[in-house]
Amino acid sequence: MKHFVDTLHISGIREFSEMYINKEDCIFLTIGEPDFNTPTEIKDALKLALDENHTHYPPICGNHELRQRIAKLESMSFFESYTENNVIITNGATEALILAMGVLLGHGDNVMIPTPCFPLYQTQALLTGAEVSNYDTSTHGFQLRYHEFSKHIKENTKVIVLASPNNPTGIVYDEESMITLHRLMEEHPDLYVIIDEVYRSMIYEGEYPSIRDYESTIDRVILVQSFSKTFAMTGWRVGYAVAQESLIKQMNAFHQNLVTGVATFIQEAAITALDVDTQFMLDEYDHRRKYLLKRLALMDVDYIRPEGAFYIFIDIRKYGMDSYTFCKQLADELGVVIIPGIFFGTEGFARISYGANMDSLENGLDRLDQFIREFCL
Amino acid sequence: MKHFVDTLHISGIREFSEMYINKEDCIFLTIGEPDFNTPTEIKDALKLALDENHTHYPPICGNHELRQRIAKLESMSFFESYTENNVIITNGATEALILAMGVLLGHGDNVMIPTPCFPLYQTQALLTGAEVSNYDTSTHGFQLRYHEFSKHIKENTKVIVLASPNNPTGIVYDEESMITLHRLMEEHPDLYVIIDEVYRSMIYEGEYPSIRDYESTIDRVILVQSFSKTFAMTGWRVGYAVAQESLIKQMNAFHQNLVTGVATFIQEAAITALDVDTQFMLDEYDHRRKYLLKRLALMDVDYIRPEGAFYIFIDIRKYGMDSYTFCKQLADELGVVIIPGIFFGTEGFARISYGANMDSLENGLDRLDQFIREFCL
Repeated sequence: MKHFVDTLHISGIREFSEMYINKEDCIFLTIGEPDFNTPTEIKDALKLALDENHTHYPPICGNHELRQRIAKLESMSFFESYTENNVIITNGATEALILAMGVLLGHGDNVMIPTPCFPLYQTQALLTGAEVSNYDTSTHGFQLRYHEFSKHIKENTKVIVLASPNNPTGIVYDEESMITLHRLMEEHPDLYVIIDEVYRSMIYEGEYPSIRDYESTIDRVILVQSFSKTFAMTGWRVGYAVAQESLIKQMNAFHQNLVTGVATFIQEAAITALDVDTQFMLDEYDHRRKYLLKRLALMDVDYIRPEGAFYIFIDIRKYGMDSYTFCKQLADELGVVIIPGIFFGTEGFARISYGANMDSLENGLDRLDQFIREFCL
Repeated sequence: MKHFVDTLHISGIREFSEMYINKEDCIFLTIGEPDFNTPTEIKDALKLALDENHTHYPPICGNHELRQRIAKLESMSFFESYTENNVIITNGATEALILAMGVLLGHGDNVMIPTPCFPLYQTQALLTGAEVSNYDTSTHGFQLRYHEFSKHIKENTKVIVLASPNNPTGIVYDEESMITLHRLMEEHPDLYVIIDEVYRSMIYEGEYPSIRDYESTIDRVILVQSFSKTFAMTGWRVGYAVAQESLIKQMNAFHQNLVTGVATFIQEAAITALDVDTQFMLDEYDHRRKYLLKRLALMDVDYIRPEGAFYIFIDIRKYGMDSYTFCKQLADELGVVIIPGIFFGTEGFARISYGANMDSLENGLDRLDQFIREFCL
């Protein structure tokens, strides 16, 4: 494993942000988490679990009630009838992803990760010993189109990893993308899909087509989910994976060797979280999103229209700078930090997060406007 | 990685215990955790962190203050002056161990694990792609003796993993064992030692010689520690590793790919834990230990005298049964569950835990006495 660990480095996103951490009067539109605090009901549930001394070892695979609740929740929209045996509770989506890749991938395998994507997928895939291929979706509206995408699937491609809604674009993969995925899975009977739905609850417009709508391939889909974004619980480190029972068993054995389990009282509070209404957060994000779209249009900045998550991917190609140079100059000159598209595998774009509050957004957009007028035109 | 994950299975210890979970009137002397609840001060610190809305992402490598406190604590007894850059906060000792093995071991490497040992070491080592060798310490009083042990160190042995105090024996490795380790490290300049000290705070008699006493090899020692046993925090899943800075950096990159980090408010409560006096727990364990030693002597049951942890390894060789048969019969016939030595890699012994309360111990020992008289003589 050391040969793979040797190749790892701390995320470029974090590194880029941290360059400006001590710079005065900087606005960070980089944040990958809600600015909301965790709702009080969830914190109270944790306190109650502590008062009841639920401080002893958790069941390795997770709290039974929590797994049952998740099985029911994840069965609702689909024909699939999951039970708790289809669910494992993990240390955030991060651990769910490495568990899924760890049981599916090894030396000699290929994993297809459409870009732009959250960079963690790439490093995790490399840790398993697999080789990584990418497919640049920017040439097809950030969607998957069979005619092009199928050319990139190799004989040894075992897994496709993707997030919908996507980070960094905020795009929801459309029905044609799902038909493409399904068709590829039918053509390649050993091909699995790991679908990261951590932004699933944050969809502001349009439908949510899912690879889980196709019964014939559902056994080869691993769903990865987290409490982080939906319930403003990033610091709690709790998420889960849903998959066929035999995969969950293998993931559980792996999980036991990585972490033993997720803190007992956190899992109990997560049960309460499932009942919390988070509509007020979504309304606020949508408000910010609409503000951003309006401002960017007025500033004549091109962008990819986001349907979900809390990111907007602006198109900077017309300014004749690569994304790192653009973002570095913007931060150096006007103190606004946004993330270069290249860190997500796609040049010519940059990611603005609206996890930040309205004041930061207004001020940040004012400065971006000034930057473009002074340095880009 | 899937090739290694395929070989994993759920711990034999858990599986054996779970066979009897629905059996009526069963006494479990199997437990690997304190029966104490987490002290109130630590729970209160967590509640305060929640009230202050410390619910957002943690620093990946861990809370700065916690790392500083640990650096100071771990520097005290040794000449080494650790800083926070020598410390990473992990999801229990389990994650600290896989991080350490992950950065040190790969395909083609050998890892030496003296037995009996906690079985997790073996499966974690296999996950890295390394091959595992064992050395049976039972022939030398469960200690390391250069003349024999050195024969088992190969050219490609990169790491020795051991716990002191040991689980399952409760033995503390003596000075001659440490001299042996140090001599081997001097002879093999690429050889590292991972020392698991999760039972370090629970030593009831004798000294604690440490491989960290030797300055010339300290850079190749990785210390693994947990809050679980010392502070009765098994359900909190928080521990740490201490090592040279370059190793911590690599472990941190790996850590980011496994879990992102440890829950923010748990790390804050862990700072408070470091100030909590746990002497009352140690006194109670020592009381139980002395009770067990006296009872076993009266029953003429042989045992390895434990100096630490909360286990006693009884010697069942004179009863003419292998350890699995002995423990299964004891559980089937008299409803006392203890763990077969074979699960720790050593035949002819069985582990009794005194993590259980006095009532269970008294009742369990009565039944063990009856079992030996009725089935073993």
